[in-house]
Amino acid sequence: MANYPSDLEIANAANKKPIIEIAKTLDIDEKHLVRFGDDKAKLNTDFTNSLSKNDDGKLILVTAISPTPAGEGKTTTSVGLVDGLCHVGKKAMICLREPSLGPCFGMKGGAAGGGYAQVIPMTDINLHFTGDFHAIGAAHNLLSALIDNHIHWSNELNIDPRRITWKRVVDMNDRSLRDITCGLGGTGNGIPRQSGFDITVASEIMAVFCLASDIDDLQKRIGNIVIGYTRSNEPVRAKELNADGAITALLKDAFQPNLVQTLENNPAFMHGGPFANIAHGCNSVVSTKTALKLADYVVTEAGFGADLGAEKFFDIKCRKSGLKPDAVVLVATTKALKMHGGIKKEDLGSENVDAVSMGCKNLEKHIENIGKFGVPVVVAINDYVTDTEKEHTAIINYCKNLGVHAKFLHIGKMEARSG
Amino acid sequence: MANYPSDLEIANAANKKPIIEIAKTLDIDEKHLVRFGDDKAKLNTDFTNSLSKNDDGKLILVTAISPTPAGEGKTTTSVGLVDGLCHVGKKAMICLREPSLGPCFGMKGGAAGGGYAQVIPMTDINLHFTGDFHAIGAAHNLLSALIDNHIHWSNELNIDPRRITWKRVVDMNDRSLRDITCGLGGTGNGIPRQSGFDITVASEIMAVFCLASDIDDLQKRIGNIVIGYTRSNEPVRAKELNADGAITALLKDAFQPNLVQTLENNPAFMHGGPFANIAHGCNSVVSTKTALKLADYVVTEAGFGADLGAEKFFDIKCRKSGLKPDAVVLVATTKALKMHGGIKKEDLGSENVDAVSMGCKNLEKHIENIGKFGVPVVVAINDYVTDTEKEHTAIINYCKNLGVHAKFLHIGKMEARSG
Amino acid sequence: MANYPSDLEIANAANKKPIIEIAKTLDIDEKHLVRFGDDKAKLNTDFTNSLSKNDDGKLILVTAISPTPAGEGKTTTSVGLVDGLCHVGKKAMICLREPSLGPCFGMKGGAAGGGYAQVIPMTDINLHFTGDFHAIGAAHNLLSALIDNHIHWSNELNIDPRRITWKRVVDMNDRSLRDITCGLGGTGNGIPRQSGFDITVASEIMAVFCLASDIDDLQKRIGNIVIGYTRSNEPVRAKELNADGAITALLKDAFQPNLVQTLENNPAFMHGGPFANIAHGCNSVVSTKTALKLADYVVTEAGFGADLGAEKFFDIKCRKSGLKPDAVVLVATTKALKMHGGIKKEDLGSENVDAVSMGCKNLEKHIENIGKFGVPVVVAINDYVTDTEKEHTAIINYCKNLGVHAKFLHIGKMEARSG
Amino acid sequence: MANYPSDLEIANAANKKPIIEIAKTLDIDEKHLVRFGDDKAKLNTDFTNSLSKNDDGKLILVTAISPTPAGEGKTTTSVGLVDGLCHVGKKAMICLREPSLGPCFGMKGGAAGGGYAQVIPMTDINLHFTGDFHAIGAAHNLLSALIDNHIHWSNELNIDPRRITWKRVVDMNDRSLRDITCGLGGTGNGIPRQSGFDITVASEIMAVFCLASDIDDLQKRIGNIVIGYTRSNEPVRAKELNADGAITALLKDAFQPNLVQTLENNPAFMHGGPFANIAHGCNSVVSTKTALKLADYVVTEAGFGADLGAEKFFDIKCRKSGLKPDAVVLVATTKALKMHGGIKKEDLGSENVDAVSMGCKNLEKHIENIGKFGVPVVVAINDYVTDTEKEHTAIINYCKNLGVHAKFLHIGKMEARSG
Repeated sequence: MANYPSDLEIANAANKKPIIEIAKTLDIDEKHLVRFGDDKAKLNTDFTNSLSKNDDGKLILVTAISPTPAGEGKTTTSVGLVDGLCHVGKKAMICLREPSLGPCFGMKGGAAGGGYAQVIPMTDINLHFTGDFHAIGAAHNLLSALIDNHIHWSNELNIDPRRITWKRVVDMNDRSLRDITCGLGGTGNGIPRQSGFDITVASEIMAVFCLASDIDDLQKRIGNIVIGYTRSNEPVRAKELNADGAITALLKDAFQPNLVQTLENNPAFMHGGPFANIAHGCNSVVSTKTALKLADYVVTEAGFGADLGAEKFFDIKCRKSGLKPDAVVLVATTKALKMHGGIKKEDLGSENVDAVSMGCKNLEKHIENIGKFGVPVVVAINDYVTDTEKEHTAIINYCKNLGVHAKFLHIGKMEARSG
Repeated sequence: MANYPSDLEIANAANKKPIIEIAKTLDIDEKHLVRFGDDKAKLNTDFTNSLSKNDDGKLILVTAISPTPAGEGKTTTSVGLVDGLCHVGKKAMICLREPSLGPCFGMKGGAAGGGYAQVIPMTDINLHFTGDFHAIGAAHNLLSALIDNHIHWSNELNIDPRRITWKRVVDMNDRSLRDITCGLGGTGNGIPRQSGFDITVASEIMAVFCLASDIDDLQKRIGNIVIGYTRSNEPVRAKELNADGAITALLKDAFQPNLVQTLENNPAFMHGGPFANIAHGCNSVVSTKTALKLADYVVTEAGFGADLGAEKFFDIKCRKSGLKPDAVVLVATTKALKMHGGIKKEDLGSENVDAVSMGCKNLEKHIENIGKFGVPVVVAINDYVTDTEKEHTAIINYCKNLGVHAKFLHIGKMEARSG
Repeated sequence: MANYPSDLEIANAANKKPIIEIAKTLDIDEKHLVRFGDDKAKLNTDFTNSLSKNDDGKLILVTAISPTPAGEGKTTTSVGLVDGLCHVGKKAMICLREPSLGPCFGMKGGAAGGGYAQVIPMTDINLHFTGDFHAIGAAHNLLSALIDNHIHWSNELNIDPRRITWKRVVDMNDRSLRDITCGLGGTGNGIPRQSGFDITVASEIMAVFCLASDIDDLQKRIGNIVIGYTRSNEPVRAKELNADGAITALLKDAFQPNLVQTLENNPAFMHGGPFANIAHGCNSVVSTKTALKLADYVVTEAGFGADLGAEKFFDIKCRKSGLKPDAVVLVATTKALKMHGGIKKEDLGSENVDAVSMGCKNLEKHIENIGKFGVPVVVAINDYVTDTEKEHTAIINYCKNLGVHAKFLHIGKMEARSG
Repeated sequence: MANYPSDLEIANAANKKPIIEIAKTLDIDEKHLVRFGDDKAKLNTDFTNSLSKNDDGKLILVTAISPTPAGEGKTTTSVGLVDGLCHVGKKAMICLREPSLGPCFGMKGGAAGGGYAQVIPMTDINLHFTGDFHAIGAAHNLLSALIDNHIHWSNELNIDPRRITWKRVVDMNDRSLRDITCGLGGTGNGIPRQSGFDITVASEIMAVFCLASDIDDLQKRIGNIVIGYTRSNEPVRAKELNADGAITALLKDAFQPNLVQTLENNPAFMHGGPFANIAHGCNSVVSTKTALKLADYVVTEAGFGADLGAEKFFDIKCRKSGLKPDAVVLVATTKALKMHGGIKKEDLGSENVDAVSMGCKNLEKHIENIGKFGVPVVVAINDYVTDTEKEHTAIINYCKNLGVHAKFLHIGKMEARSG
């Protein structure tokens, strides 16, 4: 392992191009960019609105088998796929989620790929980036403050302080804020009640930000948020507090897609970042749709395994937005398949064709599930240096034998992390 | 009043120039800018460091008599002074504080001047601007989370949960967070304790951010922050939690001064914004020092009246940084002087020379105080359309009669807000 | 119903005898009494200790079928049984639990029987009685205070404030105290933590008070109480706080059995009162054992239905104390049997022999269960004026047909509430 | 010191008489007693009411100079005075406060005198006694529960949860309950709010209990208690919650005076116990008035020094009840006078006549103050074995020289604690 540079070393050594040059590859003039330094930009709203007459490119969804501690590599596969498509002369780009600062200072790494399949500038992306998450946090907490302020005064909506479901958020892993009592300290400080903080990526503002088709739709979705219940258990919505306008004002800039680049200088949108466990786990609809107007091939990603992430992609993002992917890439690794085949993490280093074959049952089920959405599936093995030819063959054969689905299969060989 | 456009209407109608052109007036090449759209930029650190060999310009501090509900107009005077200096061919710029989002959504207006003496882009400045306050809030709250996390685990520093003085911050007027109990909900959520949130501008991180001479000094100051006390009442500092490095990393970009422009397209730094009531109330040392290297005249402002703001400027900012102003402009209005002379707010519209003269005693005391710092004082009357010639004469004569101080006086006539 | 006097009217009209006369019927000299007015007394400990050489009387446990909203009448049956035994010349007495003040001011009635089968003085018993519950509450809360005090100082036992399982108690239905945060307000007020109040009858002190064989055993049981856990999850016991002696001192007087009388002036012990849902639900071991030394027949009662109350009586009280009942009386009413037979509460007024027979399956199961403890069972129908001959016959026949168990059955006809 | 037995040893060795014999010395028939064991009794209300036609005896108030760590001995002086009066053939009795369990388990000792001037049975008095404080605590907390219950339901009185001034009480020194947040845990547990517990002796119920002339007056005073304020800052009284009747019911028995005895078998009432620092600090009006009907001389005591305790006695207890003392005994010790004369606690053992004389200024001021109420003052020196003749003479002479007040002075020599 000592021979390989770290992700950060690779990112810092990148031959980064000015963002205006990346924009040019998508035929975007410099004047449509809201630049954040030289390597990041937002696309201004007038420009993105002007694209509606363009034809849509092809949408490719990258998902994976059931996750294991061995890792699968959806993001590296997605980046590799776009770099490959561009390499062979296609006009392609990637659409990813923005990473959360929270887990970044906690245990998880960033979410911008790894090895030679990264999106850069890595440090900026992992810290404040273009301020989207700060804006979403401020918007969320403005609604929180307006709720408590409403109750503090006449509480005309008769909101029951015990039935407020709208918490506050912070872009930080802060265990001590999960469960709090606020409004203490006397009559000037509002009404005492129990509440707490979620992480910003868990905000419902984040979710509707990523589902809204335009800024008016965003305001409408914000207005419809249920913030709690009255004493007679009737729901109360944000618009009843006249909160939707001010909240949307805080999100106006953030709502514009962020343009960055891969290590191979191909264009990437990173925009929005709802967690897949509690929300739908996809980048913003507005960035995906804009990408489809700008590129012929758009690769995007859904969180966790296909049973969770891809299903949410189809059932939530696609339904709400009218999007429909043209193909699904299902990522697997031989190590993960071996784990599904019953092998312990510490024994994954040795060849074990039988375990790979056993683990392919997990692969098969995901293929079957995705098939129900009527979209062709391609299995991508995220190849590691320790993989063996026999193991790869076992996977290829297993897929071939899947009968009617088999004909749609092709095994792509990725080289991420394998130098 | 109906004849005058609002501050926002004036700001939106401004003939704004690209920020790279504003930079050019200070001989700053485009490559030294970290652009935020076309109208805002940060100066990169390598460039600001390279200026050390330049000579310093003259520093002019704008302060005011004791504040009244009638308003005095320090910021409009400051902007007007810079615009005037540039108008007569001087190389001048202004250094101001960034406004807080909190009061902006609450009762107070923004802090970018008013009428035809504003700094723009107004809306951006009043909302997220270049993200500095978000970064300071995140840095502050990272320290908070690290403290609670330390206690949650082994609490090797023996911090007493009841003696933690370091709260959290939010850039919002949120009364319900002032006094909270956090860490509730069981063993996974840390240790229950009482705490609360301050507004971001009240953060000690904000204060040291504005006093630090460079990024290393900032990290040192952060490390020295006392976050609370042990059970035996010994202070505990941020560096004992090994928190200073990560916190400073979150502030690295924010620490670079923000360049914007006045309505008359003259250069302005807005950087840092500690409240004057609880902190020292001045823009960052790094922006003031950079301005002195770039311009011949640098106008800056201190919060509240001279007895609070100017004294903090001299006793805190100047002492810590080595700065020394070359002149002080003391802002007064006839209305405010009449209030100090005993007139009620509703009776300020009528001419009252006696009341003006009575109120000049307040002016006199501030002149006397500032004189003790050994800096020349100029009184600036922020002229209103309702002011009369006799009232102005009364002020001029009063100042003349102040004897030894009188010789330093000159009455400048501003036209802010008077169309 | 209007023709019948209320329970309170009946109790107040009672021909109450001085408690020293009641004591005489059990051959207790006046000097062994600790009198509380003329109608209540405790038996002093020296006297109760002196009885050990006496032979034991017969112990009769009264329990019931599964409870329904129709009510069954265990206490009225128990009182009626003792009054009947005394009426036919037997030396009999009853042992009951003391009622809780809490439910008394809440929804439930008192627990001293009803109609002409009551224990008196009713109001005293339902309010402060001889102060036993106050003493138990004070003892419980002394331990609570000692725990928090221990943590407030050096916390040498390393108790984790989040893992303290010992709450406080109050003899009141007070919903607002169920879940609290205490120790707020600064360093003088202990350590902030989440806790709450239970009702006094739910105190573990109440439970061990009722299981202890003597005052030394009580202190030992108190010392063994687990009050919470250390940070490394080791249990901490009351004796580690040196709390057992002081707590027991507060209980010394309360530990002496209380002597009162039935409406027919027969002796009754009311002592201890743990709730059956959370504890074992029986009066004190010390009062039951003392009663067996004083009377030839001792009737006692277990809470709720036989599946809960009688099983706890056998499995907890009997095992810990060595007691063994000589007979079990299983109380049923035709109304309750009809409810078990599927009839709604509002239709219970009409004769329905089939429903009674259907409901007897519930009776049968309880008979079968009790049989497993090897104790003879007698079914007692708590007769109501609306009951019919045919319904009674159905029950008698059902019991006869139970085969081997049938021979132990005898149907007693109670007249409680039926004037 | 080793030669002297402890207070507890003296109390346990007492030649205690049956309480019915003590009652007889006051011409009280056994039938008017509500006995608590053999050594404590309450006087039933019918009897106390029947005494109204009797003439009143003389009322003697015992108070003291400003308290010092050296102690003065008001209670021992009071007990000694009654024992002395009885010894010389007078029909005298003492009226004292009941001690609190709280400080008893904390730092302070009991409040039943000391040495050979005690009221017994000491342990009973210091623990549960006749349950009065338990009843007062229950009454107080019933009101608390009713308030929270009222808010939990419709809150028709529009009580502001942040403006409830009525806390809960516990008869325990429990620092962790002083400041709490209650009503947590969801909609079933009431409304979250900040509150806390006081010690039972600080209850306003305790204060009105001690000021009420009869049970109806008590109910009226309870009904008038302000429990908090509405959102529009209007006071809310207990009677608006219909709480006065139920609360008074809990106090009916407790309201009857408690009869005990001194070590020399002279009668003593101990009834009620409001703290002097926060309330008026005297025993109940009902016990004092009953005592005046039963004895020719009634000695009573007021808390702390004369400037606090005696003034409250005159200004609160006397005004509300119509009582008027016939004489005031002002207790002093030579040690306390020496401390007021500037001597340190560790140097009090040596004779110091000058310091005594200096300290007499404190004595003089109290004499002057009491004189303003128009009641004769007697100074009582609580003599210690270390006192010297010269010191006593200095006090006697100082008092003689006080002129017009001097003629009322007589120096009594007590022997408390001096064997």
